[in-house]
Amino acid sequence: MTAYANLMGFVRETEALKQVQGRLGWDQETVMPRGAAPQRAEEMAALDRVIHARRSAPQIAEWLAEAEAGDDVAAAQLHHIRREHDRATKVPADLSAELTRVTSLSQGIWADARSANDFTAFAPTFSEVLNLRRQEAEALATGGDLYDALLDDYEPGETGATLAAMFDAMRPRLVALRGAILDSGKSAPKLQGIFDETAQLRLSDACARAFGYDFEHGRIDKAVHPFSSGSGLDSRITTRTDPAEPFGCIYSTIHEVGHSRYEQTVSPDYLLTPIGCGVSMGVHESQSRIYENQLGRSRAFTGWLYERCREAFGEIGIDSAEAFYAAVNAVHSGYIRTEADEVHYNLHILLRFDLERALIAGDLGVNDLEAAWNDRFRVDFGVAVDKPSNGVLQDVHWPVGLFGYFPTYTLGNVYAGCLFETLRKAHPDWEHALAEGRAAEVTGWLAENLQRHGALRAPRATVEHATGAPISVEPLLDYLEAKFGALYGL
Amino acid sequence: MTAYANLMGFVRETEALKQVQGRLGWDQETVMPRGAAPQRAEEMAALDRVIHARRSAPQIAEWLAEAEAGDDVAAAQLHHIRREHDRATKVPADLSAELTRVTSLSQGIWADARSANDFTAFAPTFSEVLNLRRQEAEALATGGDLYDALLDDYEPGETGATLAAMFDAMRPRLVALRGAILDSGKSAPKLQGIFDETAQLRLSDACARAFGYDFEHGRIDKAVHPFSSGSGLDSRITTRTDPAEPFGCIYSTIHEVGHSRYEQTVSPDYLLTPIGCGVSMGVHESQSRIYENQLGRSRAFTGWLYERCREAFGEIGIDSAEAFYAAVNAVHSGYIRTEADEVHYNLHILLRFDLERALIAGDLGVNDLEAAWNDRFRVDFGVAVDKPSNGVLQDVHWPVGLFGYFPTYTLGNVYAGCLFETLRKAHPDWEHALAEGRAAEVTGWLAENLQRHGALRAPRATVEHATGAPISVEPLLDYLEAKFGALYGL
Repeated sequence: MTAYANLMGFVRETEALKQVQGRLGWDQETVMPRGAAPQRAEEMAALDRVIHARRSAPQIAEWLAEAEAGDDVAAAQLHHIRREHDRATKVPADLSAELTRVTSLSQGIWADARSANDFTAFAPTFSEVLNLRRQEAEALATGGDLYDALLDDYEPGETGATLAAMFDAMRPRLVALRGAILDSGKSAPKLQGIFDETAQLRLSDACARAFGYDFEHGRIDKAVHPFSSGSGLDSRITTRTDPAEPFGCIYSTIHEVGHSRYEQTVSPDYLLTPIGCGVSMGVHESQSRIYENQLGRSRAFTGWLYERCREAFGEIGIDSAEAFYAAVNAVHSGYIRTEADEVHYNLHILLRFDLERALIAGDLGVNDLEAAWNDRFRVDFGVAVDKPSNGVLQDVHWPVGLFGYFPTYTLGNVYAGCLFETLRKAHPDWEHALAEGRAAEVTGWLAENLQRHGALRAPRATVEHATGAPISVEPLLDYLEAKFGALYGL
Repeated sequence: MTAYANLMGFVRETEALKQVQGRLGWDQETVMPRGAAPQRAEEMAALDRVIHARRSAPQIAEWLAEAEAGDDVAAAQLHHIRREHDRATKVPADLSAELTRVTSLSQGIWADARSANDFTAFAPTFSEVLNLRRQEAEALATGGDLYDALLDDYEPGETGATLAAMFDAMRPRLVALRGAILDSGKSAPKLQGIFDETAQLRLSDACARAFGYDFEHGRIDKAVHPFSSGSGLDSRITTRTDPAEPFGCIYSTIHEVGHSRYEQTVSPDYLLTPIGCGVSMGVHESQSRIYENQLGRSRAFTGWLYERCREAFGEIGIDSAEAFYAAVNAVHSGYIRTEADEVHYNLHILLRFDLERALIAGDLGVNDLEAAWNDRFRVDFGVAVDKPSNGVLQDVHWPVGLFGYFPTYTLGNVYAGCLFETLRKAHPDWEHALAEGRAAEVTGWLAENLQRHGALRAPRATVEHATGAPISVEPLLDYLEAKFGALYGL
């Protein structure tokens, strides 16, 4: 056995255990009995300790010193193993296990506080989570920037500064577009009708199938906050339903299918290895976004969806595919990020990005967070937050310690803009296929040029390999201005 | 930290990881996408390797050498830790992981072969599982009896010989009772009606609640072969439905509730420790059996159930609670163990017990197993097996390597007989409570005198602590003769 083979055998087992961790997470958010939470925290912490010990095992360093990369694939595997080993050895096992235990419990506390609309009930737990993550960031940063150290977990290669520069470049055109739409005085048609939950879920399944979701290697369940989970042969998604309208369900599903198809499509040669999964959260989000927005909310696909909605729900208060397209793409200043339209979405992210950088830097305290959120929201969205569940308590991310995660959503949108520009050229017939519900035919280009490669290349290089051009914010902004300019007669 | 505290800290994490293993098992049999099986096998094997390494860790021996038991609880913990460490150090890690991997895969192969009614399609896998388990038995037995070495996993303290003697003592009276019933010429009334699946599951929930099942710390799902899973704060059960009749669903649920209540009731002081769970499969089965049979199929409880069935299904072709009681307790020579009445059930077990002892001893080969099963069945049940799914392929136990498990079912029946005799004296009002559906009030005696103690005492001692008398087969046989003698006018 060569050092490389030994290393890969060891790492393969670690990857299998990480998949187990994913299953437990899925279980917790979909089917776990409520009273099981304290025990589950112990289970998660024990598993985390095992995985942490394997990631930081001394024999990895020995194998890494001897292992030789025979080809690009091996080189990529070694790169990821080295990176993960470096990070794991920097974080004390006790801190890692404690973070897992606390964030497993904090989720329930957050859910209760959100229901009660009481940020102060959650603030002590929030502080505990934040402090533990800052400790982790200090261990990882070794004197460097704390936020960058956390961001590196989700988007290797990016920094707070590079992203701030990217977001600053987008902001003026986004703000101008938003202003022009609201000033246009034009309002989108609204759905009216009875949207039976079973019919919503059936339609959600049909959309998943249209986008090629593989039910042999996945499943769809309900969860409060939709997510995707797992890699390789078991990649599951969740969705949600709202009796008042079906778009939340449909587009949550299509969004999560984008994530899950990425995982399902990675080359089987890479199964249970470090490159056998999506390369970063930003690239992941580019897939979910392009499925959901550029394709799923296109005029072509909404034409197909309009017919399916009428079959599913009967009368929906909208009498043409054109009006339905406008309804799907209605622009409004809402409170909730996950319900935001494409124009507002990035403004939600920029708010969170700035606040979490300040939290991690220590420039903003937990006790001042709710006020800071509400102030910023009033400035950016022109309305006051009415209750914490519509404000600072709306997202699960911070409660479970995901600081540094939010900016990957906007980065994903930027990547999606680049990919969509190339896809349209590569597949000129894309609208015709979507109009007939053959979305999987269109996403085939993504499967072939991006998804199947997993984490073979670095995040930006993964997208640039597919597009053949450097990353730019222009395609996204051009797309938004063209689409919403036409919709709102600008 | 004392050696005992160190040891318990370490073991607590191992117990948490064993719970994770239980969750994965639950997932696999209820919700896992079919195509995930090969990956799941890798996940289970990786987790098994971790647990095996912890169970056989050298520091356990060191701590055990130093640890002092301050009280009975600590003494029981040390006993279990020592026992598990001894067993784990005898079995090579590779063999343990391979067993986990192969038995994770074999389940799907068995299910396919069962559907196809083709034992030869499963025989190679069966041989592989059997060989691996015999290797394990050889490692564990260190020269002693192979079957006893496997049995010890499920029922510490028993041997094949002690059980054979017990079963031999039961056999004449069981055979005589069965003969007298069939000779009586009396046949039980049969249910007729439409048994909607949703209504069955609702009734199953109602029965679970009647027996005190705690949905805050459990849940009920569907599975091909009902089972219970998990300990402490997360103990789940599964049930099944058959559109032709509702008893399979109802009594599977009550049976599994017996198992699960045992786990849910163990003292919270023992959570995630070696004594924080049911002590053996036999004692476990005594709980499921007494819930299902002595209580669930009693005249008193079936009176309550009769009304609930009429509410759930409307007309069921039976016009009195007395006739319903007879229908619930119909005696017939069926093929399927899990559908067997109380009189035939133990004959199913005795068949399997003898065959698996011969398999493990090497006196019976896999290629001769189907014929041996069919011959024995014809002798014991008076009918020929019509297809493998009604014969040798009916149970999941052997396919997943559970050799030595079957006899614990009959042992559990014997224990249930002893417990029921004592319970009736302790709770003279038991029939009144059951007739009003207050089954949890009756099982409270079991909770107090047996369930809450977990694995504090050895299996037989656990039952004898509750009954205050040595184990005997007489109470079970007396109960069966009295009950079925009255039902069949003997």
